Amino acid sequence: MTISTPGVTLGVVGGGQLGRMLAEAAAPLGVDLVVTDPSDPCPAAPVASDALVGDFDEASTVRAVAERADFLTFEIELTDPDVLERVAAETGTPVHPKPDTLRLIQDKLVQKERLGEAGVPVPAFRQVDDEDDLRAAGEELGYPLMLKAREGGYDGRGNVPVDAPDDVTAALDAIEGPAMAEEMIDFERELAVMGCLGDGERDTFPVTETIHREEILRESVSPARADEGVRERAREVAIDVLDAMEGRGVYGIELFETTDGEILLNEIAPRPHNSGHWTIEGCHTSQFEQHVRAVTGRALGTTDRRAPTVSANVLGDVDDRQPATLSGEESVFETPRAHLHWYGKQDVYRLRKMGHITLVGDGESTADLLADVRDLRDGLTFEN
Amino acid sequence: MTISTPGVTLGVVGGGQLGRMLAEAAAPLGVDLVVTDPSDPCPAAPVASDALVGDFDEASTVRAVAERADFLTFEIELTDPDVLERVAAETGTPVHPKPDTLRLIQDKLVQKERLGEAGVPVPAFRQVDDEDDLRAAGEELGYPLMLKAREGGYDGRGNVPVDAPDDVTAALDAIEGPAMAEEMIDFERELAVMGCLGDGERDTFPVTETIHREEILRESVSPARADEGVRERAREVAIDVLDAMEGRGVYGIELFETTDGEILLNEIAPRPHNSGHWTIEGCHTSQFEQHVRAVTGRALGTTDRRAPTVSANVLGDVDDRQPATLSGEESVFETPRAHLHWYGKQDVYRLRKMGHITLVGDGESTADLLADVRDLRDGLTFEN
Repeated sequence: MTISTPGVTLGVVGGGQLGRMLAEAAAPLGVDLVVTDPSDPCPAAPVASDALVGDFDEASTVRAVAERADFLTFEIELTDPDVLERVAAETGTPVHPKPDTLRLIQDKLVQKERLGEAGVPVPAFRQVDDEDDLRAAGEELGYPLMLKAREGGYDGRGNVPVDAPDDVTAALDAIEGPAMAEEMIDFERELAVMGCLGDGERDTFPVTETIHREEILRESVSPARADEGVRERAREVAIDVLDAMEGRGVYGIELFETTDGEILLNEIAPRPHNSGHWTIEGCHTSQFEQHVRAVTGRALGTTDRRAPTVSANVLGDVDDRQPATLSGEESVFETPRAHLHWYGKQDVYRLRKMGHITLVGDGESTADLLADVRDLRDGLTFEN
Repeated sequence: MTISTPGVTLGVVGGGQLGRMLAEAAAPLGVDLVVTDPSDPCPAAPVASDALVGDFDEASTVRAVAERADFLTFEIELTDPDVLERVAAETGTPVHPKPDTLRLIQDKLVQKERLGEAGVPVPAFRQVDDEDDLRAAGEELGYPLMLKAREGGYDGRGNVPVDAPDDVTAALDAIEGPAMAEEMIDFERELAVMGCLGDGERDTFPVTETIHREEILRESVSPARADEGVRERAREVAIDVLDAMEGRGVYGIELFETTDGEILLNEIAPRPHNSGHWTIEGCHTSQFEQHVRAVTGRALGTTDRRAPTVSANVLGDVDDRQPATLSGEESVFETPRAHLHWYGKQDVYRLRKMGHITLVGDGESTADLLADVRDLRDGLTFEN
């Protein structure tokens, strides 16, 4: 290959924070980004070569991006694999990961079925089309269980815990559509592995511990505070997951470490993932650079960690949607090895992901690092 | 202070590689860049919010940038301090570093006079307005000496060695304008310190060894392979230089380490500098993030080094100006901890700075790191 100017253009469906951080990582490699997103301006717009305005599944804008791009990828699962497939065929612009893999991942039932068949350990689950299905699942899997919308959920939306048979009707009403029931996992901790598929090579970033509340990621810790054997098992499962994926790119692989020390697959995201944001400072290659390398057919970079690293999400803390003005950020700027990442969203609302803070270690315990990054995060507010 | 969207806009006169790397560093902090540059598109354009086209000293475009910006800075000395000063006064947009400091630096004779008066050790020098002045300087300072254009030189342009009295006429003809003569320094090595002036604070990045050929920077090595005492003296001199500067920002301070172990000031650049590119991966805060923090009034970041780090410039290796297509870059992508930075210039010509490679250490000697980064650099070519 070569590098020139204008060089490789990477088309990205979605221009949120992931698109923004992809653009930040792409520029040094001589890769320009063209994104499409319904928001105008979207978070990626200031650092992308161009940002087209259109829904994630709008064929005309996805096509316009593909026509200007050498490679096409996506940073959100809400795009339409049929559109991606057709546009890729018609424009000749290769798309990674493959639309078939996106289809598999979009339907959580199919995802669990296929990965289970491939030998990946998954929680027990049942297809749920009506109340009878859900009651039967309750008898077989036991209560409480987790009812999940098969499509469209993220950040916990589309997941409803079902505590007892009396909750069945309300739970199905909340989901409104095809669903699946999954046994509630009694986990010791949640883990995540960013996996990478390159051109004939694959790799994984170091295993990350993820801490959720209200099913939204709050903090990540790397290395995960799990036994070495557990971390190695998590890596093996991630490799098995990668073997079931088609197309180059970075994959966010969320796992449970059960109280028995087993690893079970939770969910997969076929893109850079919140649990890998710490790699920007914490690894020699970030997950965003890695995704750009992979999709554009470059060699993967090393996934080695530079130092123990934690990160904390900066979430909206106001009830009503309003223009976002964050205060308290001085202490982040004043803390050595703390890094603020602002996503460039104009409005804030409760629990919206507005940015994150990463804190790189210098000999402290990860517990101390985690306490420190929480203190920094807790000093921030969008309240006036 | 606060962060919001749209947030702070930083106006930058110049949109070359320094502007591009400033934009890459500014986005995570929620800072948008608007640049002005005569090239269309300029290297910074893909990652800047907007790039206006105009000469560096064109008042109308500098004013247009200032009107859209909260802070104004420059990444090239070829701008006009009078224009900056007037535009800042008329638009109310503060400019950093101060135009007075740019004036002082633009005239190499004034720079040396003022810094010498401030107690900074400088090589012996003389003002040269005609042949008699230069001959007198030769008698006092000895031959060979260096004749320098007082204004406009960079990357060695405007510097002419004078070996003997017979060369005086030709040297002055080559300079074509006001000049100064400087004793030729018998140096052990060249050093550089990136100094930072913040809002009531100042700091320096670790001392860097710089290796030039044909007066163009080829490689940088940090830590510099100089004695600890020499490095400490370099840092002291850099602090003295900073004390003579006005306005926030990062300053590139180039020094000689003489064969006697003395430190002498060579030149100052009132902006991020090629000798500090290694800080992007090599330090917890890069010189570019530091400049953005400083100019926008944020706290300075730590200047601590993450690991020993070297970098090598990727220079044009073709005689005729032509569209730039770099080959051989695969080995950079394949080398762990090697990072390619492409500047996005469309055309290449001999010795044009097209990019750089940084290699971060993992226990090797800096000599081995330097050999490795040279090998990577030597594997690149723009020849077809």
